[in-house]
Amino acid sequence: MKVAIIGVGLIGGSVALDIRAKGFAQQIVGVDQNPQNAKEALQLGLVDKMVELDEASSADLILLATPVSTLPGLALEVLERCSDPTIVIDTGSTKQQICKAIAEHPRRNQFVAAHPIAGTENSGPAAAITELFHAKTNIICEREKSSSSAVQGALELFEILGMKTIFMEPLEHDRHAAYVSHLSHVSSFLLGQTVLDMEKDEKNIFNLAGSGFASTVRLAKSSPQMWAPIFEQNVEFLSQALLEYIMHLQRFHYHLMKHDTPELLRIMSQANNIRRVLDGIELKQSTVRTTDPSLKDVTDKIQ
Amino acid sequence: MKVAIIGVGLIGGSVALDIRAKGFAQQIVGVDQNPQNAKEALQLGLVDKMVELDEASSADLILLATPVSTLPGLALEVLERCSDPTIVIDTGSTKQQICKAIAEHPRRNQFVAAHPIAGTENSGPAAAITELFHAKTNIICEREKSSSSAVQGALELFEILGMKTIFMEPLEHDRHAAYVSHLSHVSSFLLGQTVLDMEKDEKNIFNLAGSGFASTVRLAKSSPQMWAPIFEQNVEFLSQALLEYIMHLQRFHYHLMKHDTPELLRIMSQANNIRRVLDGIELKQSTVRTTDPSLKDVTDKIQ
Repeated sequence: MKVAIIGVGLIGGSVALDIRAKGFAQQIVGVDQNPQNAKEALQLGLVDKMVELDEASSADLILLATPVSTLPGLALEVLERCSDPTIVIDTGSTKQQICKAIAEHPRRNQFVAAHPIAGTENSGPAAAITELFHAKTNIICEREKSSSSAVQGALELFEILGMKTIFMEPLEHDRHAAYVSHLSHVSSFLLGQTVLDMEKDEKNIFNLAGSGFASTVRLAKSSPQMWAPIFEQNVEFLSQALLEYIMHLQRFHYHLMKHDTPELLRIMSQANNIRRVLDGIELKQSTVRTTDPSLKDVTDKIQ
Repeated sequence: MKVAIIGVGLIGGSVALDIRAKGFAQQIVGVDQNPQNAKEALQLGLVDKMVELDEASSADLILLATPVSTLPGLALEVLERCSDPTIVIDTGSTKQQICKAIAEHPRRNQFVAAHPIAGTENSGPAAAITELFHAKTNIICEREKSSSSAVQGALELFEILGMKTIFMEPLEHDRHAAYVSHLSHVSSFLLGQTVLDMEKDEKNIFNLAGSGFASTVRLAKSSPQMWAPIFEQNVEFLSQALLEYIMHLQRFHYHLMKHDTPELLRIMSQANNIRRVLDGIELKQSTVRTTDPSLKDVTDKIQ
């Protein structure tokens, strides 16, 4: 199979590494507007060659892995150029806008709107790693608008990557993603800014910060160029999530100032319930190796 | 040397494991008001025996590792009972209140006010692990109020644990700790609460949460009983840090609603500077093994 990867960064590059290693693709071509990324992707051997969009459009499977702001336009361009059996899959972290953009396209059924939920705080071709997606979750939206063969092709790809796929509507996806992913990026960026603002000489952060701080603020290292468009595309749900977060912080502050220990304890004990959820995530990611049935067992048990 | 550990939880238990392994203590006795903890600590072999405070007071070195709310009273009790050469060291995450509580005690110079900055989100004797403190930072406050032999004894202990000790005033410690440690716990607790509040069936968190969310919300698993007193003792600095954090979040929300992409990018790029700090923390914790000189090289370079 010939696979074209448009956007050879963390996501596109990591897919390339795995599908080559697993023999899923015989040829992998890349497209990237950034000449430095293009050069690095070639040097790192992520792709066989870098090509123009026209040449990439002849691939059997085209993966779109560029920032979400570019996806609607790019998807339309690719659907214009590709031939009939080609499957086009996007990997964006928001799903309403891309689905809306391609809704009326005559080749809509060749497109699969996906969100493989994986990543690190790093970006660019050099950030690509093997098994990035292993035992993680992939979301496919508007399954019914893609042809069965396109869905089948996408499922094969994500299974090769070791992912479990679930189906969801774009609105539902974006609403949950606002809370479970986008909000934690915002909270981390702003925690980083607050601390840097206060601790101007950085020596004190270095001396007093433990692994807890490092963990909480890790996402503040993420790429602004990637995340600004995600926040903007999901502005309504993110705004709601952010306001609720701010309200919870303000209430905590109120009880703190009133020295209301029982209430502080109650809030924190309630938050402790996240342990059950996180243990589930860690269990899923550490114990599940390859087979779908065992994955199902584990997730059923937790859910 | 006979060492008494009062509070055989994560911190006390982890110290016990290391000082036994390194031959620093020939006998370790434990004190714990919680019968379950006392039982577990014995079963896990953290201590040789559990004793009453009176018996513990005859040790050469007494380590206080109970929640900070209990430290002022406990420190006074222990100083009353111990004999002249005994060194008493606390490990609390706040330093103003404990220092104030013992300021006028005739045995103040046998006391060393310390904060070994290490921990995990787990608590209790079963959470104790070896090398918890390795290559991390210990703070000693009011060094000049402790006798040289007490400071020397404390430095030996923390060196055995693999820690670098720096000296700081209690007020300075508490102010920085509010930003670099306490605030990230609050932000994590409330992020956990916000998401749990929204995602009531938990299935969606499980399906959509990636490793980024897990990292950001990890501290929400921490013990409320341990953290409520820390927040309360450091209420002024924490309140300030929390209000600044809320202000940053509100400003971000404002720019988000105004679709002010350049400003969002500017804020996130600024927050990216935390990478330099975190790389330093990780470097310190992963590359430095035992010797003080090499630790100094690394930290000098980063600072």
